[in-house]
Amino acid sequence: MGEVPESHPRYTSLMARQRMTEAAAAGMLADSALIAHGRGEAFDYLLGEQTCEAGLQAIRESATRLRAAENPVICINGNAAALAADELLSCAAVLQCPVEINIYYRTEKRIKAIQAHLNSRKQALSNMSPPDDWNVERNWSSDVAGVTILGDTPDGAIENLDGPRAACHSDGILAADVLLVPLEDGDRCETLVAMGKEVCVIDLNPMSRTARYATVCIVDELRRATTHLLSELLRGGEKPTIEWDSETNRANSLAVMLASLQRFEA
Amino acid sequence: MGEVPESHPRYTSLMARQRMTEAAAAGMLADSALIAHGRGEAFDYLLGEQTCEAGLQAIRESATRLRAAENPVICINGNAAALAADELLSCAAVLQCPVEINIYYRTEKRIKAIQAHLNSRKQALSNMSPPDDWNVERNWSSDVAGVTILGDTPDGAIENLDGPRAACHSDGILAADVLLVPLEDGDRCETLVAMGKEVCVIDLNPMSRTARYATVCIVDELRRATTHLLSELLRGGEKPTIEWDSETNRANSLAVMLASLQRFEA
Repeated sequence: MGEVPESHPRYTSLMARQRMTEAAAAGMLADSALIAHGRGEAFDYLLGEQTCEAGLQAIRESATRLRAAENPVICINGNAAALAADELLSCAAVLQCPVEINIYYRTEKRIKAIQAHLNSRKQALSNMSPPDDWNVERNWSSDVAGVTILGDTPDGAIENLDGPRAACHSDGILAADVLLVPLEDGDRCETLVAMGKEVCVIDLNPMSRTARYATVCIVDELRRATTHLLSELLRGGEKPTIEWDSETNRANSLAVMLASLQRFEA
Repeated sequence: MGEVPESHPRYTSLMARQRMTEAAAAGMLADSALIAHGRGEAFDYLLGEQTCEAGLQAIRESATRLRAAENPVICINGNAAALAADELLSCAAVLQCPVEINIYYRTEKRIKAIQAHLNSRKQALSNMSPPDDWNVERNWSSDVAGVTILGDTPDGAIENLDGPRAACHSDGILAADVLLVPLEDGDRCETLVAMGKEVCVIDLNPMSRTARYATVCIVDELRRATTHLLSELLRGGEKPTIEWDSETNRANSLAVMLASLQRFEA
């Protein structure tokens, strides 16, 4: 794609695209992953390529639920690893929880490629300075290094799902009470919620089946959302909302897109 | 991607995705082509995955202009070749005009891959029965076989564009008075119009720069649009609209997307 100057108005979007094409070359992605990314780009374009107020509320709600969880788990697929490995691993370090590689079109080769990428990012992160608001009583390097990366030796299965996409770890997804699942598939989201788990998803399409099934749906671009999520997790505080109104929150995100289409129409 | 049953509610969309991944494997596409396809999918989803009335009007206007042209040319990039080679070659057979392979990230390898695909489809098409409304006085097989495929030996350049994306044929794009350019880049669309050409584009994003610059923008999925266009070209009739109101037409397409978002909001 050539060099993109930082001054380019769509720099962030183009860099994300570059990360995706690099991940494709590294064997981390299924054939349809780039197409899915493009769909996301279109919705993000309607969102004005910035986190909206409803998105922020859903991020805060997710942070609160993840902090209150007994066994939080962060699921990572190829796109999530490509776009926001550092942010997701940092969230896991703060929560001291495992991440689990969980992909729809599961092949061992792809799992290994994602695992290699996450391990390399984990190594790099543990040598960086901690993020703002990091609790100085804890050790960033060892907390990052201590994040377990599950996914390559699944010993369980998600209920009511057939095929390799059901494979998961009994000490990971199966044991979790609260899951953060960026970019989840609709079927899997539905069944995880039916299993009694709280499922926080990140999905740019507020009308998708995933968005509708999730306990909390953050309608936002993955990297922006996880950057905010990390800040919220570090900031702490607050109890989970007893009655989180997911439908209203999604409608508020949708309203932002609607307003942007209306502006174009005018 | 496995077998997709024809009864699947999103069969057409999934088949298009399959054609795109096959084209990627055949070396016809740039890295960003699948992402662009995904963006289109999102807009088509908002369009309800069907040709809207404004789209049909723009298709009719394009057909009329192409028929009235002295030197019509149909430009084809990797995505267009992957998604609608048969439809575009059939339109060229009806118009008895050349097609020109013209891609943004030009490499000789990619041009050759697209050329091989178009030649193989041309061969296959010429052995098929003609489409409905075909003029029985003409010979379908020889008219298809007679379609010239330009693009591999460019001897000219589109004005004011730098780099390989400017390369074109003096007896193709440069000589054309009316161009059909599915999925055109914004810069190139702008400069082609500035060169005094009528540029009919097919673009699912009614807000894109391409859509705004084009003489006629058909806001529709490529294969549906070219299928309709072929029927319109075969049906004949009508003079070009003297004052084609491109802006109103785009706004009407946008309104369909807006209404679909509003339905989800309700």
